[in-house]
Amino acid sequence: MLTEIREQPDALDRTLRAELRGFESLRAKFSAKPPRMVLLAARGTSDNAAQMGKYLIEITTGLPVGLAAPSVSTLYNARLKVADCLAVAVSQSGESTDINVVLEHAKEEGAFTLGITNEPSSALASLADHTVLVRAGRERSVAATKTYTGQLLSFYLLAWALGAELEIDDLKKLSERAAEALRLEKEIAQRAERYRFMDHAVVIGRGLNYANAFEWALKLMETCYIVAERFSQADLLHGPIAMVEHSFPAFLLAPSGPTWSVMQPMIGRLSNLGAETLVLTDNSNTAAPKNAVRIPSLLEYRSRRHPALPADLYTPIPYIIPAQLFAAHLAAVKGLNPDAPRGLKKVTQTL
Amino acid sequence: MLTEIREQPDALDRTLRAELRGFESLRAKFSAKPPRMVLLAARGTSDNAAQMGKYLIEITTGLPVGLAAPSVSTLYNARLKVADCLAVAVSQSGESTDINVVLEHAKEEGAFTLGITNEPSSALASLADHTVLVRAGRERSVAATKTYTGQLLSFYLLAWALGAELEIDDLKKLSERAAEALRLEKEIAQRAERYRFMDHAVVIGRGLNYANAFEWALKLMETCYIVAERFSQADLLHGPIAMVEHSFPAFLLAPSGPTWSVMQPMIGRLSNLGAETLVLTDNSNTAAPKNAVRIPSLLEYRSRRHPALPADLYTPIPYIIPAQLFAAHLAAVKGLNPDAPRGLKKVTQTL
Repeated sequence: MLTEIREQPDALDRTLRAELRGFESLRAKFSAKPPRMVLLAARGTSDNAAQMGKYLIEITTGLPVGLAAPSVSTLYNARLKVADCLAVAVSQSGESTDINVVLEHAKEEGAFTLGITNEPSSALASLADHTVLVRAGRERSVAATKTYTGQLLSFYLLAWALGAELEIDDLKKLSERAAEALRLEKEIAQRAERYRFMDHAVVIGRGLNYANAFEWALKLMETCYIVAERFSQADLLHGPIAMVEHSFPAFLLAPSGPTWSVMQPMIGRLSNLGAETLVLTDNSNTAAPKNAVRIPSLLEYRSRRHPALPADLYTPIPYIIPAQLFAAHLAAVKGLNPDAPRGLKKVTQTL
Repeated sequence: MLTEIREQPDALDRTLRAELRGFESLRAKFSAKPPRMVLLAARGTSDNAAQMGKYLIEITTGLPVGLAAPSVSTLYNARLKVADCLAVAVSQSGESTDINVVLEHAKEEGAFTLGITNEPSSALASLADHTVLVRAGRERSVAATKTYTGQLLSFYLLAWALGAELEIDDLKKLSERAAEALRLEKEIAQRAERYRFMDHAVVIGRGLNYANAFEWALKLMETCYIVAERFSQADLLHGPIAMVEHSFPAFLLAPSGPTWSVMQPMIGRLSNLGAETLVLTDNSNTAAPKNAVRIPSLLEYRSRRHPALPADLYTPIPYIIPAQLFAAHLAAVKGLNPDAPRGLKKVTQTL
């Protein structure tokens, strides 16, 4: 898992270079006839990437994005009216039965279909009208890491293809941002020691980092067997915060930008409850707690040509990396093998 | 909370009778010009009702339904292209700032807007093009119960207005089904005793009862301070099941019907892991574990005129009632006051 975490800058670089041409042709296609909405279908880590994709596409293009409920297709056998829509399936293996059924139905109903997968010879790749290959190389650890950031990158490229005013030059820098985040490994490994006996936790994000809260929690569940809740800052306030008590461990993804105005009071409220917070933020954020993990500031990477783009636009990839490192090191501290969690296989097939 | 749980049959009956005429006019409107998709916006318990609404509308009408990410509107200030869509906001109080902003933006972009609320004089009621009043009467407990089932009923009526082949006569029987489920109270109260020292749990549903898994977990979090995870049966398999160990408490909503074929193996797998399962199913389900909670069978209530409708179509309302009872009685066993959870108010305003 650690090896694969460290491969991410190269994988991102490789994926961008190889897939750019395909996205250029998609951009031409969508510019001639934009889809009326986007449907995303995925499970597990890929579903978290899709969640980020929803926020990213809605924020940068205004197209409404829905996350598919696979059982509607697989168990209830219903057909969705998705003619003239874009349907996207995301799956590391490309062999998720239910996700492929959703895409197949969407295609039959007249949607244009896109597959995002790590496996060129998968069922998904042969089914989709257009396949985006995450060039992460074989992922051996059951806990997905490099395929997740590759999927996130694919969603930036997809948003661009759908008309978002992103600059490809900025996307090229994401590999560098990932490399900078990896330099936090030593600090993260030290901090993980403290959590040796943690058995439950809550992970909180908002906006573009809401999906990362789900992904961080998933890594804690599958590699460290921690009962890890995950919420948007707003959803936590609508009931679940009642469960937070003294010493409750809380992890927050809190970059500068549009979500800071609500994440900052949340950090304060958790501290007042006596919860122990670990905050990821950027190193230019002077208002964050002193013991926050500092990620190199991304503010300057917002394209100067598009000042209306949010300041946290490029945070999801660098922000998940310390979270991945944390889970891998905590698993080691706990004496667990994060590459082969109990009861899991690399390819999960569900209906 | 218990008083309000017990009021649900009357509240459902009142809501249906008073709101039917409004839905008839919506049905005429949508029949002349169907919306091209549906956007649902809600938080907390109302968001769980919206999640059920997504499944119900997609299964019975084929219209794609998206759940709004409020921060896209409130923090990122993006505009969604939702002309000719139906936008629905669900809020008990009608005073959720973020949800109202989503609806306001949708209205400005050309969507037809619907508000589902318990409060006729709320900001939401004055904002929406059409208001559905959940006639539950004042809800005093912070933990929402009767407004949740009222919202679920509203989604059945909305699906009908959108062209679903439901029979109003069948919807009228939901109040009776709720009354039958309430007769389980004594059994549920006895079973709750066993969980006096439970501090974490997982709640599992699928399809139309996926939302109920979220709602049951939310009730356990806010009234009993339990760290309660919630998953679809498929999502649990994509990683989180690794955290389930011997004695892990698992709660399953598992009616007969399309989801039983995947819930049954899940019950078996959890038992093999040594988890302790509590299964809600219907009393005609001979394949369920002996110690399952038995809810009067709903199979006969599927309209005979529409045999293609799924067998679990009318389970969400009767199935959440034992879950609500369980949370209220467990809170009492734990010496907690479910009407006033620590740190919560009845109206939560978030951005």
